[in-house]
Amino acid sequence: MPRFTAPIEDISYALWEVAGLDGLAALPVHGEVTPDLVDAVLAEAGRLAEEVVFPLNQSGDREGCRLENGVVRTPAGFPEAYRRFIEGGWTGISADPDYGGQGLPGVLGFVMEEIFSSANMAFTMYSGLSKAAYNLLAVHGSQRQKAIFLPRLVDGTWSGTMCLTEPQCGTDLGLVRTRAVPDGEDAATGEARYRLDGAKIFISAGEHDLTENIVHLVLARLPDAPPGTRGLSLFAVPKFLPRPEGEGWVPGPRNGVRATAIEHKMGIRASATCQLAFEGAEGYLVGEAGKGMRAMFVMMNTARLAVGIQGISIAETAYQNALAYALERRQGRALTGARSPEAAADLLIVHPDVRRELLIQKAFIEGARALAYWVATEIDHAHRNPDPARARAADDLAQLMTPVLKAYCTDMGFEATNRALQVFGGHGYIAEMGVEQYVRDARISAIYEGANGIQALDLVGRKLPAHTGRYLRRFFRPLTGFIEANRRDPAVAEFIGPLEKVTARLQQATGLIAQKGMADPTEGAAAASDYLRALALVAMAWMWARMAKTSAAALAEGRGRRAFNEGKIKTARFFYARMLPEAGSRLAMLSGGAASLMAHEAEEF
Amino acid sequence: MPRFTAPIEDISYALWEVAGLDGLAALPVHGEVTPDLVDAVLAEAGRLAEEVVFPLNQSGDREGCRLENGVVRTPAGFPEAYRRFIEGGWTGISADPDYGGQGLPGVLGFVMEEIFSSANMAFTMYSGLSKAAYNLLAVHGSQRQKAIFLPRLVDGTWSGTMCLTEPQCGTDLGLVRTRAVPDGEDAATGEARYRLDGAKIFISAGEHDLTENIVHLVLARLPDAPPGTRGLSLFAVPKFLPRPEGEGWVPGPRNGVRATAIEHKMGIRASATCQLAFEGAEGYLVGEAGKGMRAMFVMMNTARLAVGIQGISIAETAYQNALAYALERRQGRALTGARSPEAAADLLIVHPDVRRELLIQKAFIEGARALAYWVATEIDHAHRNPDPARARAADDLAQLMTPVLKAYCTDMGFEATNRALQVFGGHGYIAEMGVEQYVRDARISAIYEGANGIQALDLVGRKLPAHTGRYLRRFFRPLTGFIEANRRDPAVAEFIGPLEKVTARLQQATGLIAQKGMADPTEGAAAASDYLRALALVAMAWMWARMAKTSAAALAEGRGRRAFNEGKIKTARFFYARMLPEAGSRLAMLSGGAASLMAHEAEEF
Repeated sequence: MPRFTAPIEDISYALWEVAGLDGLAALPVHGEVTPDLVDAVLAEAGRLAEEVVFPLNQSGDREGCRLENGVVRTPAGFPEAYRRFIEGGWTGISADPDYGGQGLPGVLGFVMEEIFSSANMAFTMYSGLSKAAYNLLAVHGSQRQKAIFLPRLVDGTWSGTMCLTEPQCGTDLGLVRTRAVPDGEDAATGEARYRLDGAKIFISAGEHDLTENIVHLVLARLPDAPPGTRGLSLFAVPKFLPRPEGEGWVPGPRNGVRATAIEHKMGIRASATCQLAFEGAEGYLVGEAGKGMRAMFVMMNTARLAVGIQGISIAETAYQNALAYALERRQGRALTGARSPEAAADLLIVHPDVRRELLIQKAFIEGARALAYWVATEIDHAHRNPDPARARAADDLAQLMTPVLKAYCTDMGFEATNRALQVFGGHGYIAEMGVEQYVRDARISAIYEGANGIQALDLVGRKLPAHTGRYLRRFFRPLTGFIEANRRDPAVAEFIGPLEKVTARLQQATGLIAQKGMADPTEGAAAASDYLRALALVAMAWMWARMAKTSAAALAEGRGRRAFNEGKIKTARFFYARMLPEAGSRLAMLSGGAASLMAHEAEEF
Repeated sequence: MPRFTAPIEDISYALWEVAGLDGLAALPVHGEVTPDLVDAVLAEAGRLAEEVVFPLNQSGDREGCRLENGVVRTPAGFPEAYRRFIEGGWTGISADPDYGGQGLPGVLGFVMEEIFSSANMAFTMYSGLSKAAYNLLAVHGSQRQKAIFLPRLVDGTWSGTMCLTEPQCGTDLGLVRTRAVPDGEDAATGEARYRLDGAKIFISAGEHDLTENIVHLVLARLPDAPPGTRGLSLFAVPKFLPRPEGEGWVPGPRNGVRATAIEHKMGIRASATCQLAFEGAEGYLVGEAGKGMRAMFVMMNTARLAVGIQGISIAETAYQNALAYALERRQGRALTGARSPEAAADLLIVHPDVRRELLIQKAFIEGARALAYWVATEIDHAHRNPDPARARAADDLAQLMTPVLKAYCTDMGFEATNRALQVFGGHGYIAEMGVEQYVRDARISAIYEGANGIQALDLVGRKLPAHTGRYLRRFFRPLTGFIEANRRDPAVAEFIGPLEKVTARLQQATGLIAQKGMADPTEGAAAASDYLRALALVAMAWMWARMAKTSAAALAEGRGRRAFNEGKIKTARFFYARMLPEAGSRLAMLSGGAASLMAHEAEEF
């Protein structure tokens, strides 16, 4: 039976010791954010995740969702668990208090998503999509749209979806065909009315039995709209048309949108991935006509970071189980002599290669968690810091790091779950053990919210050249500042040399890409994936040096749990010795340029 | 709908141009091996694989196997397809003519397994296990055992299993508990009889409806046997006790072995993975008492190479489908301007990162195929070459390369199927598309027949030190010979420099490991996985340089298909630019030594 304990200690450490949650807590708008409050939130989320949500993870995978007569049934236990989830206020943790939210920093929303995704990624998809819809409507919705939808998305009684993909287009949304035509006004809401016709696919939470209503945010094309993405507008299309009741809104008549199929997928089987048919469905224009893609981009950074964090969250659960197995299962003897002579064999954990598998997982999870929370905290600064220069700097960093975190954390999240499976040997391949589900669930995160190749293109094609490299400077300047400031600190001296060297190599490669990519965009694209990985590894190395420094100080001062801080320093050493060298090969690969990628004619493959 | 075409052109190239099948054909014992014969065998295998076996791959995965009242039902179509498979003589292609086999070189048996595993890995497991049982009995069985079992294993009417694993032991077979006690003689066979009691798990083809009998080869412990692997003996335990009829043997009374459960697995769901209970089951001792493990080792090299080839075979099918998709699906525009201005979008194949994903697959598959067939051909020389020095040299190379091929080809096979899935984007995650099954199927190959970490330990702990490095010299000497001989060949000059450099670095690392590993076995174990990968990459680089040379010559002489040979040379360039650099980072990782792996106390993980 798989197990899961919310990693509260490490989350707290990442938040307070690395991400700088204290800096956010010092903002007037977040006066309520104290260590006690954060502890209470984490403990409460952990309890619900462990006791209610996690026990439905395996059964949900086995059972999957069913579509019957247009109605999607989620697996047994999901509706009740969702009810407890929204009663706990988890859908509104970082939402605007004006709409019933708790107004906590966005980073705590990400933390909450990490914890619940660790427990049950498919379950957490439903509220995750609602959050994306909330973010989008909160920025681009009209006052009336906000009044109708936001309170219900915040209290979780309604959920949301993002309807982008169609059979002929996923990455290339310029090919969207769904049509919207104006059709007077909706008397009940006072909103201009549009009628939508078209087919959407891969719509997560597109239809289900957890909420009383669903609001679909749909990319569609108005009559006479130009081709391509410039012709796309965004519409809110509720499953049930909202009707006023008392001071709020309730579901009214059924709208012309229905699930025509649900997909049979490799993983996240308890998440209903729907094909939706819009047949004269009534919708309201969100934001300006023709600005649908721009509206989408608003929520893209948070959605992409959230998916990156999914990679960490699944890896966490897989790692906990692999570690537990390595500490229970006896097989073979330590090469230097029996460690448990009284038993028939030693524990798996004595074997160097098993430790290597475990430490790659641990070093990824903890380093990536620190990095993701730091970037999430910066996103809060971008939105909330009253100093415009500080806010802009924070946004720049988030712009740069979002594709890096999305791609690196999901690629490595999948790799980490696989390494966890390997620790179990043949038992890992058996469904009952639970770990193979993590591999299948984790696999999607490298694909959705922009496949990882697209993230790399975003990094190299958009983020590097933006404002003549300004985003990148927000990364390199504090990094080189850290190197300078710690050159003589004996606690981290062993890391500073390698960090400085790899940073210099990355900077050199960046210059090369900028130069070559300017002359030929194919060169930038050919370097993109390897460059992204190299940048991620350097960022991870920075995080590990910071954590080693922090934990060395904690040990010196007798703060914190000793084994925890010793583990941090030792894992930093592991990362530098065993994972950072990959950056060198990635930089060597991209230095080869585009030629060897572009040479093959179609028939030569 | 997934597709599959047997890659006959590339297989022929690997056999004749790289592996040296002509050298085998020149041996007196293989006078019948002509290009025409090989062409006919490949064409016939390809036809059956494509038309009969491949169409059952997806349905077999969906349906899985069922255990009902002790009887395992394979998926619909399997029994009929298996009947056609054995009617074609495929179970006996490289078996001894004395027992009804065709006596073709073993390498053609591996080729046949590649083709059928590409079509349907789960289906091909059944005959694969029979081959392992055949190999073992052919070497260690008594004359009577051979007479009883081999003709039936060769004609495929009976099948075999390997019964090693028990709940408490997989890797560590010294913990086997199954007991065997002498019980007189079996009158019908004249064999000494033993009664076996115990439980085995993860027994592939342990029970099924494809054959009229199954012979289990079981590791068990005789009374008073010493603990550990020295106490293990090997027994043949038939499902139905053999009874003479006419000149052969037929299934007689039911024996005391039965399937108590079948596993629900991540993949190869159509392969029946059984829990078996032996309850006073009658068995015959194979080989000497207490020499069970030694007998196992005989068939281990071929079984491990076969599993390595499974990695290639699944990657082949996944790649074919990803390539076809990239040549059909239109999404986005080439960065340098529209390539298909008449269409709404360009083909996926125009995008550099998609090409990178595809070329990593292609470079792995074709390089690894050449390498695997070369080693398989050497195994034939080891068994059949009349020159004892040549035979020994061939065996040395096979000893060295078997763990390398097993681990590298299965790790990369899984990675390649994943990259194929990524080319499909979201569609790859949907079961109907077929590619996610390849990922799930491929995953097991890194685990069974010795998990890949064990392969690395075998390489570093056994194969490197063997005969003071003699195995390794069988690799490095011809490699450095190749480098010397081709230094001035303009067709491969571009590869020789990098190949020489990485070879020197690998030799250096080898010396370091030998030195450190002698002093502390933990050091060798900590380096093992990265060392194995580096050695594999160097071997792959050698193969690609050889293929570039061969194809350059073919182009110059107007031999072969032009696009095929151009593709080889371009893929060699891709491998050197984009894949070989990984060797550098692997060598850097292992140079860090064991310290960072061994430092964590259990509570510091």
